[in-house]
Amino acid sequence: MYEKIKQSFDQQGLMKTLKAELVSVENGEVKISCTFSEALTQQHGFFHAGVATSIVDSACGYAAMTMMPEDTEVLTVEFKVNFMKPAKTDKLIAVGKVLQSGKTLTVCEGYVYDSSGEKLISKMTATMIGVSK
Amino acid sequence: MYEKIKQSFDQQGLMKTLKAELVSVENGEVKISCTFSEALTQQHGFFHAGVATSIVDSACGYAAMTMMPEDTEVLTVEFKVNFMKPAKTDKLIAVGKVLQSGKTLTVCEGYVYDSSGEKLISKMTATMIGVSK
Amino acid sequence: MYEKIKQSFDQQGLMKTLKAELVSVENGEVKISCTFSEALTQQHGFFHAGVATSIVDSACGYAAMTMMPEDTEVLTVEFKVNFMKPAKTDKLIAVGKVLQSGKTLTVCEGYVYDSSGEKLISKMTATMIGVSK
Amino acid sequence: MYEKIKQSFDQQGLMKTLKAELVSVENGEVKISCTFSEALTQQHGFFHAGVATSIVDSACGYAAMTMMPEDTEVLTVEFKVNFMKPAKTDKLIAVGKVLQSGKTLTVCEGYVYDSSGEKLISKMTATMIGVSK
Repeated sequence: MYEKIKQSFDQQGLMKTLKAELVSVENGEVKISCTFSEALTQQHGFFHAGVATSIVDSACGYAAMTMMPEDTEVLTVEFKVNFMKPAKTDKLIAVGKVLQSGKTLTVCEGYVYDSSGEKLISKMTATMIGVSK
Repeated sequence: MYEKIKQSFDQQGLMKTLKAELVSVENGEVKISCTFSEALTQQHGFFHAGVATSIVDSACGYAAMTMMPEDTEVLTVEFKVNFMKPAKTDKLIAVGKVLQSGKTLTVCEGYVYDSSGEKLISKMTATMIGVSK
Repeated sequence: MYEKIKQSFDQQGLMKTLKAELVSVENGEVKISCTFSEALTQQHGFFHAGVATSIVDSACGYAAMTMMPEDTEVLTVEFKVNFMKPAKTDKLIAVGKVLQSGKTLTVCEGYVYDSSGEKLISKMTATMIGVSK
Repeated sequence: MYEKIKQSFDQQGLMKTLKAELVSVENGEVKISCTFSEALTQQHGFFHAGVATSIVDSACGYAAMTMMPEDTEVLTVEFKVNFMKPAKTDKLIAVGKVLQSGKTLTVCEGYVYDSSGEKLISKMTATMIGVSK
């Protein structure tokens, strides 16, 4: 499972650009982290909301993929994100978890923590669709 | 107005990283574009949802800022995005528009189009909060 | 088209309970209204957010149905609603419009206005799925 | 705490109309249930999405209120709901929980279960605002 998702992850140009790392892959749960740099900031010098959203979207998509048949691709239908704390941290840790796995659609919850893994910075709910290759 | 927002935009490390451009600033409406490159892709070689979301979040935030008092900073409370078409295009054009401007909160609508400016790729609704500097 | 949707509308027990009315049915757009009564209030005496949401959800679902094949049922996958003004009015007018009609999923925008039809009280974005009967 | 919220709950005309019941009030968590009747259905004879949404919105609002200063009223800024299972059950049980309590805004998670309390039918994320009376 890890190999398949690592391969797909490595094809995401954006993940390379953000210097994001695939931390772990379990059944229904995927973690991706991203280390702070000036290249990822908004105007106040913290992580841009778009960075947190990009890695947690990928984490949710891959979490959904762990529960789908082999030859299925995953696309994001929609997501919603609440930003609860300023992203003042040296590392973002994004966790995507499957909440409900259906025939066509999968609902995931995504969490973005600071480097301690304890402070919840933002929270995503995402709807993913599986498409046969 | 353009100058103030251009200055803030230039401080966003992520906008530089994505090679995004501030296209226009009007009262209640801001446009930001982003040219395709391999550095911005998901695993199928199109723009990553996170790129579209990053630029339209910035466009919505700045649109909100055009309608707030001088010394106010804008933070994203939450947003929701529907992804309607695959982002197969050589340029994304994001438009942020103020739908409702309140004392504390501003609601914005964001649209991401392909390079023709006609095909709607994704649609955001965002809640922004103004914070006195 | 109107007849088919009127028949379905009349089967919705909740629409009767809320004394909601099907105002109009056009291709990709449906209107439903609801007159104020004490039976529909929250604790401050205005329309409960749940009433506005119920009628605009139905309006969006039926708008989606106008653009689907004959024998298709519509289910709500998810929706998001922003509440912009207090619902102090003697009548709510909900308008559901199709934004994007796909093979499996339909994205709709819903608007809830006051009785003048001019003041926007709340705004929905909804994802609907068509299921063959 | 229960008394204060029960009093507000009893002023909600819609909760009476839906025959909803305030089940429990704890710090940061409120439960509301609603028994099935024909008066609450959509066109397929199950609970209308609007009923589930109405009670879980109230549950989230009251959960937020348990963590706010005495003289504060709670308004819903926005919510998002995913509908995961058809609401085929004789009773809906809605649970609202505070995820993040801030100075101005409170983020809540809402869960709607079937009568067994085990099957998750829908999931809300809501942003609430506290307003001084």
